[in-house]
Amino acid sequence: MEVRSRAPGKIILAGEHAVVHGSAAVAASIGLYTSVSIRLPSVNDKDDTLALHLMDAGLEFSWPVGRIKEMLPNSVNNDASSPTTCCEETIKLILIALKDFKIPDAKIGIASGVIAFLWLYTSILGNKAAKVIVSSELPLGAGLGSSAAFCVSLAGALLALSDAVAVDFDQEGWVSFGEKDQQLANRWAFEGEKIIHGKPSGIDNTVSTFGNMIKFKSGVLTCIKSNMVLKMLITNTKVGRNTKALVAGVSERKNRHPDAMTSIFTAVEFISNEFASIIQSTSCSDDEVVQKEQRIRELMEMNQGLLQCMGVSHASIETVLKTTCKYQLTSKLTGAGGGGCVLTLLPALLSATVIDKVIRELEECGFQCLIAEIGGKGLEFRFEGRS
Amino acid sequence: MEVRSRAPGKIILAGEHAVVHGSAAVAASIGLYTSVSIRLPSVNDKDDTLALHLMDAGLEFSWPVGRIKEMLPNSVNNDASSPTTCCEETIKLILIALKDFKIPDAKIGIASGVIAFLWLYTSILGNKAAKVIVSSELPLGAGLGSSAAFCVSLAGALLALSDAVAVDFDQEGWVSFGEKDQQLANRWAFEGEKIIHGKPSGIDNTVSTFGNMIKFKSGVLTCIKSNMVLKMLITNTKVGRNTKALVAGVSERKNRHPDAMTSIFTAVEFISNEFASIIQSTSCSDDEVVQKEQRIRELMEMNQGLLQCMGVSHASIETVLKTTCKYQLTSKLTGAGGGGCVLTLLPALLSATVIDKVIRELEECGFQCLIAEIGGKGLEFRFEGRS
Repeated sequence: MEVRSRAPGKIILAGEHAVVHGSAAVAASIGLYTSVSIRLPSVNDKDDTLALHLMDAGLEFSWPVGRIKEMLPNSVNNDASSPTTCCEETIKLILIALKDFKIPDAKIGIASGVIAFLWLYTSILGNKAAKVIVSSELPLGAGLGSSAAFCVSLAGALLALSDAVAVDFDQEGWVSFGEKDQQLANRWAFEGEKIIHGKPSGIDNTVSTFGNMIKFKSGVLTCIKSNMVLKMLITNTKVGRNTKALVAGVSERKNRHPDAMTSIFTAVEFISNEFASIIQSTSCSDDEVVQKEQRIRELMEMNQGLLQCMGVSHASIETVLKTTCKYQLTSKLTGAGGGGCVLTLLPALLSATVIDKVIRELEECGFQCLIAEIGGKGLEFRFEGRS
Repeated sequence: MEVRSRAPGKIILAGEHAVVHGSAAVAASIGLYTSVSIRLPSVNDKDDTLALHLMDAGLEFSWPVGRIKEMLPNSVNNDASSPTTCCEETIKLILIALKDFKIPDAKIGIASGVIAFLWLYTSILGNKAAKVIVSSELPLGAGLGSSAAFCVSLAGALLALSDAVAVDFDQEGWVSFGEKDQQLANRWAFEGEKIIHGKPSGIDNTVSTFGNMIKFKSGVLTCIKSNMVLKMLITNTKVGRNTKALVAGVSERKNRHPDAMTSIFTAVEFISNEFASIIQSTSCSDDEVVQKEQRIRELMEMNQGLLQCMGVSHASIETVLKTTCKYQLTSKLTGAGGGGCVLTLLPALLSATVIDKVIRELEECGFQCLIAEIGGKGLEFRFEGRS
């Protein structure tokens, strides 16, 4: 039996950094997915290994089921309906076991993903042999929520094979869980994110699970139903950034200029709220869509200016802004800044020729360009080879 | 007898555009001057013409004194101690008379300057023959207050030759008027500015007259005593801009996003106030100066971000920002934006080599670079050829 699942990445549409200081922010899923395929051996198959193939990293791992019992002694008591946190001790045990695989230095960050995999796998399915294949359209470490998409997709595929959720094996094509099961997948994915990130906000996995858009403020997440098609060009500058240092830098600037920075965060709050309300409002005519796009562009420009006030822009981001500006397109950084990714709104009536030109010019700067629809579906799964 | 006078240009250090919506702004004089020299004929000289030579424009005008009486029939009743406004009728009369001079189309903007000249000259000195020479270090129409510097310098030279102010002809070198006489020169200059600009704010002529810095908010001007040497690179992008349209654009954006824009203007208010207080605070050690410069840089970066929020930046401005950023220098637009001039702080300890490199690179982009000390002296005059 094989189950496949997919979960989308995310972008921050408005409010990054200011959200740390109590303002609202808006995140959205993007139409770029991380897919997980889990194939359980057939009844006659004597294979008793758990194999993990990370396609994009070009890494393969496999463990005899007996070895897994040693690494994760509690995994036989798995209860897929009650997400539990992986303790430090277990992480250490798995890390030791991972040394056998000689992960190249350049890919050492993947180790935490493998730990999260083993924790979720054994916690949800127990000690079972299987072949797991992971592939992704999302660049790693670019702030597009690739780790959350991985955890959500994995949790979804595992839960579909577990007794914890009610799924109909005969459904064809991609299907979603019911809301209660989505929540369970989200909670499991959050446990995986904790292994990878330490203290994740929970935003990435929530967006990836439920799709669409989410407004978040002071730890409270609210789902937003988008009522417009929004297409973005996502430019990955490939400039690595230190999110912690960027967040700390904004806080220091706030300490130095408390009044001005508080007003700046307040302005961001208004921008996020206006962004959310434009997206939720219905529009009938083409004219209305153009008007909404115009307002979104203005809000993006304003938010970008405010992010520059916070000191989190970067020369590479400015290059993207300048390049897209030449084509009358509006861009803003998304996420932590200091490099990372830049969003450019692609208006509904923009010609493909212009899009091609912009992309060519950005790629000539060494950037990676992705086009994605914003606010699409979240976690989905399908059964393959039902026979 | 010859009197020479000089009056400086100005820059907006912080708060442009937001000032229109009630926030504070800070303007400062710059060490770039417009000079006026007036030579009265000696007693035996039979020359009865008034000649005006605008050195930078390469234009010369001259009028027999009798012709001036026709153009400005009230000019015989001049009272230099009571500034009066030039009426529309007089402007029309002078414009007709100016047709004799065939001013080239490209320099037609200068006509209003010549009208202001004739008005100030005849109102303060009456119908007297003289040779007047004007030269300037300030680019015209770049937002550096060249017209105000012209009016202030002219009013100062004229008043020095009139009975309305008390001056000591035996003083050597550049001297300033007393405060009361400065105020008189400022009021006359404002009358000249009205001829050139229609509805000037009065900020440019006030900064040019009194020098130093001025905080202005809701029409109230407050002089600020600077306690630090501040040197700026002023880059003239030479991109002409429509100030009225830019101001209107900000107002329209405020109408569309009132809450966010109000917070943005509030942030600017805090930045202007902080800027003013840093400049006024005394500093003893080099370390303290470096710290103050660091805070000023941060405020400039924040103000620039907020101006981008208002939508008044321009590709040429972004090019200057990017170029100076490469050398770890901070810049912001000054004035209306949409082109015009950009300020770059030149820290006290910055090497001349770096300054040369930045200037060379900016000039290669077709920009004009000027270095100026900020917050220096205002209107000054001197008598030449006392014999």
